[in-house]
Amino acid sequence: MMAESQHHVVIVGGGFGGLYAAKALRKAPVKVTLIDQRNFHLFQPLLYQVATGTLSPADISSPLRGILSKHANTQVLMDKVTEIDPQQQQITLIHQTLSYDTLIVATGVRHHYFGNAHWQDFAPGLKTVEDALELRRRIFLAFEAAEREPDPVRRRALLTFVIVGGGPTGVELAGAIAELAFKTLPQDFRNINTQEAQVLLLEGLDRVLPPYPPELSAKAAAYLRQMGVTVRTQTRVTHVDSHGVTVEFSADQPQAQAIPAHTILWAAGVQASPLGQQLAERTGAELDRVGRVKVSPHLNIPGYENLYVIGDLAHVAGQNSPPLPGVAPVAVQEGKYVAKQIQARLQGQALAPFQYKDVGSLAVIGQNAAVVDFSGFKFTGIAAWLIWVFAHIYYLIEFDNKLIVMLQWGWNYFTRQRGARLITHPAVPEQVEHPSERAVAKTPTSVP
Amino acid sequence: MMAESQHHVVIVGGGFGGLYAAKALRKAPVKVTLIDQRNFHLFQPLLYQVATGTLSPADISSPLRGILSKHANTQVLMDKVTEIDPQQQQITLIHQTLSYDTLIVATGVRHHYFGNAHWQDFAPGLKTVEDALELRRRIFLAFEAAEREPDPVRRRALLTFVIVGGGPTGVELAGAIAELAFKTLPQDFRNINTQEAQVLLLEGLDRVLPPYPPELSAKAAAYLRQMGVTVRTQTRVTHVDSHGVTVEFSADQPQAQAIPAHTILWAAGVQASPLGQQLAERTGAELDRVGRVKVSPHLNIPGYENLYVIGDLAHVAGQNSPPLPGVAPVAVQEGKYVAKQIQARLQGQALAPFQYKDVGSLAVIGQNAAVVDFSGFKFTGIAAWLIWVFAHIYYLIEFDNKLIVMLQWGWNYFTRQRGARLITHPAVPEQVEHPSERAVAKTPTSVP
Repeated sequence: MMAESQHHVVIVGGGFGGLYAAKALRKAPVKVTLIDQRNFHLFQPLLYQVATGTLSPADISSPLRGILSKHANTQVLMDKVTEIDPQQQQITLIHQTLSYDTLIVATGVRHHYFGNAHWQDFAPGLKTVEDALELRRRIFLAFEAAEREPDPVRRRALLTFVIVGGGPTGVELAGAIAELAFKTLPQDFRNINTQEAQVLLLEGLDRVLPPYPPELSAKAAAYLRQMGVTVRTQTRVTHVDSHGVTVEFSADQPQAQAIPAHTILWAAGVQASPLGQQLAERTGAELDRVGRVKVSPHLNIPGYENLYVIGDLAHVAGQNSPPLPGVAPVAVQEGKYVAKQIQARLQGQALAPFQYKDVGSLAVIGQNAAVVDFSGFKFTGIAAWLIWVFAHIYYLIEFDNKLIVMLQWGWNYFTRQRGARLITHPAVPEQVEHPSERAVAKTPTSVP
Repeated sequence: MMAESQHHVVIVGGGFGGLYAAKALRKAPVKVTLIDQRNFHLFQPLLYQVATGTLSPADISSPLRGILSKHANTQVLMDKVTEIDPQQQQITLIHQTLSYDTLIVATGVRHHYFGNAHWQDFAPGLKTVEDALELRRRIFLAFEAAEREPDPVRRRALLTFVIVGGGPTGVELAGAIAELAFKTLPQDFRNINTQEAQVLLLEGLDRVLPPYPPELSAKAAAYLRQMGVTVRTQTRVTHVDSHGVTVEFSADQPQAQAIPAHTILWAAGVQASPLGQQLAERTGAELDRVGRVKVSPHLNIPGYENLYVIGDLAHVAGQNSPPLPGVAPVAVQEGKYVAKQIQARLQGQALAPFQYKDVGSLAVIGQNAAVVDFSGFKFTGIAAWLIWVFAHIYYLIEFDNKLIVMLQWGWNYFTRQRGARLITHPAVPEQVEHPSERAVAKTPTSVP
């Protein structure tokens, strides 16, 4: 049982930041409450493998209660935070109110449509298990509808997959869909040739993987093209609807083009969780352009020593200039740092400011094809792919029975099968709208 | 490519009956079209393990296209049959119309509420992947809500799980939920003792597993009680709502009792798919009490030699008296028989009537606890459990990478972990209604 007088650390969010903070507090003389809307921790870096039918949601998730069940000082609450009161040191949940001595907010980001929220229905993003299952449903339904479609123009649109955004998620999705269409599925259909599918990766900047070193961007683009992906950089999406996308390319002489496409996937931008906004209003903290909270070098909100923001929700100024990227290793290190910092403060000490130990950047494009940047050491090809595999297994293995994932990968690697390509929610095949009709009729030459 | 002049066999339904018919026609000089609303075959006997968080849907499903991809004479259509015209030998789907030379209808059954369809919202059944995920969501949300609930009466209702129906599905669900509450979860909660959960199995007849030999029913009931399940036979459910169930027991002196319960699972009855009714209207075929189509000893509809009904949708009179049970081995054998029968008919020959080769009855109650009846040889305990494990793996192994299931089981067996206990669809914790309130207030002593 937990003593009421103990220092109470409340952690909001069971992603990489929040979970690793909780884990690191296991032996600390504090009482810990971890709150999440979901009952599981999600290994988000592999979510695209759920979306493309390789893994099941449970393969990349672990129940939070299970992970923390042996932490005697920790309780898990499945609930949602609606209000934070930094003055009273209280948070309001849907089902109760809690007081804290120290609060760690780690509620992450959602995808973002740059003021075009209505695009979401036509171009869903990939952040949650439900997102991944919806993408999976759309991708595999498109092939099914194409198989039934006699009209070649409509069939073409049904077999066109547009991925908006050339960051790691977009690159990984494009590679996985290309593998599906060009390697896994051809034998399974009778009326269509899935190798005629078009996989388009659209990026607004001048190269894919913009945060990576340019050589790796070039290598990644080359891999993608080898695999059959059409990579279009300096291409801005100006319109999205059920018929496809309209893009504008070439910055000097903008030209608009409509691309009829049944399946559009959004990997183009993120926006901070709304709790960031609330924290800013109540503490005077600054937010950056995407709503992340600017924190001190010790990861707390300036003026609030017991209020930390970590993970994707935090804007941590980099040593040189760009803020730390929203990736799992940053969040993990921040979680561990804050746990140490809390213990130091309880003993009247202070830690040096947080310093991110760069573990490198990784992106996988397909079997044997990946790019890795290990603080200057760059790998590509099968070496990079193996590093990617083992880096992920290293993390997954901490949780539960995730060795299974390795076996599943091994099996998929040798068979090119995708056992998890189920179409669910809803079950019954709907009347598929025909994206090509309107889009072809109105092909614009310029969009205002 | 398939010659248009070839004999066209259309199979409706990719369950055990339809799929095994298609598989057995691989080398036959016919063109085969398999139609299913879903893009995967589901190994329904293990669905309860999805509902209770042990397996993922993809572990017990295989894409139909993948299974049949090497069958050059076979095409798969994901579509839904709306009309069958036995005179014109045509079927209408949502997306097209097809002509057939031979039709095999194998669309199975759904659960059935005996004229109380509105009970479905409060007591969902278990036939589809979506059903299983909904059950999983309800079961694990109930524990989460109990953990937050200060009121002991409400907590009690939240920790009460009622399973209606003591057939194999009900018995397996009750056993799995008891294992969860009493063995897997206790360490994971801080405010509740999950061992105080009540798991009630209600059966209207005088014993569980009514179709099995009485000794095995007795043994199964004993196992269930050992595991902490409250087994109540001769107990009829007369009312279901969001607060719980009302039951009537003791046939001579009916007494009603309200049982406040947050989670009610329906495993009490089935009803034939609506295509059975349509077939009856258009061919004059007879239906049985639950809507199954009475077929000839050759499994066709009397008067329609090229129209077969197999699997759970068929009522096949048994050698002695009760019709064959709606289980996988019956459907598989019927599918294979019809495939042979079609080939014989094309050669002007005729097969002897269908005869079911009894492979025994199986039900698993928990780890090391199962009952098996192998045509007279009865097993219980760990021997029966091992037979059950291997019988299922034998079937699963035909498909894809389902060896993974065995590894998952092995892991679960030794760790008692349940990696797949995710709460999904919808994501955010809702306000949970409090079942005890109304039910306790109005506890009836008799229900009309």
